[in-house]
Amino acid sequence: RLRILVTGGTGFVGSHLVDKLMHEGHEVIALDNYFTGRRKNVEHWIGHPNFELVHHDVVNPYYIEVDQIYHLASPASPPHYMYNPVKTIKTNSIGTINLLGLAKRVKAKMLLASTSEVYGDPEVHPQPETYWGRVNTIGPRSCYDEGKRVAESLMVAYNKQENVDIRIARIFNTFGPRMHINDGRVVSNFIIQALENKPITIYGGGEQTRSFQYVSDLVDGLIALMNSNTTLPVNLGNPEEHTIKNFATIIRDLVGSTSPIVNKPAAEDDPQQRRPDINRAAKLLNWSPKVSMNEGLKLTIDYFRKELEKER
Amino acid sequence: RLRILVTGGTGFVGSHLVDKLMHEGHEVIALDNYFTGRRKNVEHWIGHPNFELVHHDVVNPYYIEVDQIYHLASPASPPHYMYNPVKTIKTNSIGTINLLGLAKRVKAKMLLASTSEVYGDPEVHPQPETYWGRVNTIGPRSCYDEGKRVAESLMVAYNKQENVDIRIARIFNTFGPRMHINDGRVVSNFIIQALENKPITIYGGGEQTRSFQYVSDLVDGLIALMNSNTTLPVNLGNPEEHTIKNFATIIRDLVGSTSPIVNKPAAEDDPQQRRPDINRAAKLLNWSPKVSMNEGLKLTIDYFRKELEKER
Ligand SMILES: NC(=O)c1ccc[n+]([C@@H]2O[C@H](COP(=O)([O-])OP(=O)(O)OC[C@H]3O[C@@H](n4cnc5c(N)ncnc54)[C@H](O)[C@@H]3O)[C@@H](O)[C@H]2O)c1
Ligand SMILES: NC(=O)c1ccc[n+]([C@@H]2O[C@H](COP(=O)([O-])OP(=O)(O)OC[C@H]3O[C@@H](n4cnc5c(N)ncnc54)[C@H](O)[C@@H]3O)[C@@H](O)[C@H]2O)c1
Ligand SMILES: O=c1ccn([C@@H]2O[C@H](COP(=O)(O)OP(=O)(O)O)[C@@H](O)[C@H]2O)c(=O)[nH]1
Ligand SMILES: O=c1ccn([C@@H]2O[C@H](COP(=O)(O)OP(=O)(O)O)[C@@H](O)[C@H]2O)c(=O)[nH]1
Ligand SMILES: O=c1ccn([C@@H]2O[C@H](COP(=O)(O)OP(=O)(O)O)[C@@H](O)[C@H]2O)c(=O)[nH]1
Ligand SMILES: O=c1ccn([C@@H]2O[C@H](COP(=O)(O)OP(=O)(O)O)[C@@H](O)[C@H]2O)c(=O)[nH]1
Repeated sequence: RLRILVTGGTGFVGSHLVDKLMHEGHEVIALDNYFTGRRKNVEHWIGHPNFELVHHDVVNPYYIEVDQIYHLASPASPPHYMYNPVKTIKTNSIGTINLLGLAKRVKAKMLLASTSEVYGDPEVHPQPETYWGRVNTIGPRSCYDEGKRVAESLMVAYNKQENVDIRIARIFNTFGPRMHINDGRVVSNFIIQALENKPITIYGGGEQTRSFQYVSDLVDGLIALMNSNTTLPVNLGNPEEHTIKNFATIIRDLVGSTSPIVNKPAAEDDPQQRRPDINRAAKLLNWSPKVSMNEGLKLTIDYFRKELEKER
Repeated sequence: RLRILVTGGTGFVGSHLVDKLMHEGHEVIALDNYFTGRRKNVEHWIGHPNFELVHHDVVNPYYIEVDQIYHLASPASPPHYMYNPVKTIKTNSIGTINLLGLAKRVKAKMLLASTSEVYGDPEVHPQPETYWGRVNTIGPRSCYDEGKRVAESLMVAYNKQENVDIRIARIFNTFGPRMHINDGRVVSNFIIQALENKPITIYGGGEQTRSFQYVSDLVDGLIALMNSNTTLPVNLGNPEEHTIKNFATIIRDLVGSTSPIVNKPAAEDDPQQRRPDINRAAKLLNWSPKVSMNEGLKLTIDYFRKELEKER
């Protein structure tokens, strides 16, 4: 039984990770500043002797004794991370420094939730971990992209210099229950629009692609990576790729909605194609996604249907 | 007359900038932690009523009232920035945050000394400011490259969100008097090796290129940029491009040395070509370099000859 800190532990991915670690019998500390996370995502654990909920902002130092750190604290959705770009960079730079300082002091293993956004708007397709990326340092996404890129560089620097045992997960678009109704990312937007028979909003022409992974696969991958012995970055994602245009139709059909599909202005610096090369994860972690996109979407549609009913 | 803070003010570039600002009649505060800077670079100003020398590390908050900030504090030479990668990133991330917090509070204009390293090992040649770069987030240079990249993103974020008036200079290889004998960059290494008739050490085959600018041109460019009204990044460099192999011969000939030229193992992730596109600086600042590389080299060789004599 290990003591495990999950930063961003009341968020979408964090809360599912907490569930799995609790089911494995570990002691889990979920830390969050509730920027986008919610107490209700982990409330089923409150009162459990192995569980602790900590209200803290990673931009400030934090002291605890743990064996492992999953560092997920960061806004993740474009509207959330662009809401306060300064805070987004502070969270990913100072926040990651603080957690690395903690990991160094207590000799904990630390995993960073990095992102496919380190590849930016890629010219290499699909994206292997060896690809260095194409990111605009001064664009609207740079607060997130460069924040995560420097977080990776920090991980490597503390590994080399201070012997911190590191893991770097480059996470591709992930969806599932517990996404916030106001998350603002494409999956929740389209499902809610379809459920309410309102226009499904495509930013730009909709020819841009994404590859969508169901959250349980990601959680399995994160735990497999933590328990592996590689310090190299590892892509975690489902290579099933769709244009956003096509994705809108799929969701409308699954929901059985009458929503029209409309085009809105394109987002600035929006990556035009994205698909993970997951050979490294297959080889080093013996991991690959198990849940098809359609299966995952059905579960997620059910979740949002219930959420919307509760709202009424 | 303005009150001007120069961080990294006792370093190579910083001390020349201090000279020019003092000659223009400003009040100048030179701040440095003396990692690579030296008191002797500014000692001719000590005691002058307009000059103040502050021993401080930018990783810690700093409070002062000023009109302008030239933020140069950062190790700059590869052996220096790789010596303590963690500190290099802290200096460029936390350090830049602290100066931006200061600029925001006192409404000072702030210029960041960024670098051609934000372009990494470029596929576009020469490099215009619109090029997004090709940088390895986990390589040995990443502590510097990603530190500077996120510093640019921070500048833009504080500009957008807090209305800080920003300037971003992307500086290309610069040389001149006051470079440290142990600086470790190619110009000082080759000149000292040539002066001592020791082997001139080329890392790798020497086919990689650089474009070298004399320090007085850079200082003029930095001041012109500060006094311009653009918040866009601006390249400052001399487009005169040479292979490192050719550069070794030029220096040996200028010195009149008998040094053999030898090849050492290539440096990891060493950019293979680098030359600034300086159209933006020409257009927005009416700036272009005035000193040819050979002229600059002669002055620099004289400087190092005297330095070596002093050492004896
Ligand atoms: N879901 C994806 O598609 C995806 C893709 C790539 C990377 N990621 C990364 O995975 C992690 C989790 O993302 P998510 O999808 O669960 O998003 P989310 O917004 O649901 O979760 C982020 C959590 O971090 C918390 N947080 C933010 N700033 C904080 C701070 N300063 N201090 C403490 N807590 C803070 C939020 O309150 C929230 O609970 C993030 O690091 C994100 O960058 C997610
Ligand atoms: N000279 C070049 O070719 C070149 C090229 C690109 C960018 N730059 C940038 O220009 C700036 C000056 O470079 P330089 O060539 O004069 O190098 P330098 O090493 O001579 O100067 C850097 C100065 O910053 C100081 N410093 C470093 N860390 C500090 C900290 N944490 N707190 C306070 N002071 C600190 C050093 O002591 C030194 O005085 C740097 O930001 C560098 O990245 C230089
Ligand atoms: O248990 C710890 C140890 C360190 N830190 C923070 O982590 C940062 C980086 O740690 P490091 O050891 O690199 O910094 P140092 O103590 O040398 O400044 C420190 O500034 C602390 O703020 C923390 O939050 N918890
Ligand atoms: O309501 C929306 C939300 C997003 N998108 C597009 O869907 C893709 C995925 O966007 P998301 O915000 O989910 O995540 P990203 O992968 O861009 O971080 C991008 O091309 C967006 O422009 C869209 O067309 N409509
Ligand atoms: O005169 C100042 C004002 C701020 N800061 C530092 O700059 C950082 C960033 O400033 P900002 O206003 O963004 O931060 P906040 O005060 O909101 O935390 C602060 O944390 C301070 O450490 C400083 O060094 N000098
Ligand atoms: O003793 C030296 C120092 C540097 N270099 C090469 O010269 C170029 C410029 O290196 P420097 O460290 O001056 O600056 P950089 O532009 O790489 O930051 C690079 O290709 C180095 O590999 C070299 O061949 N011998």
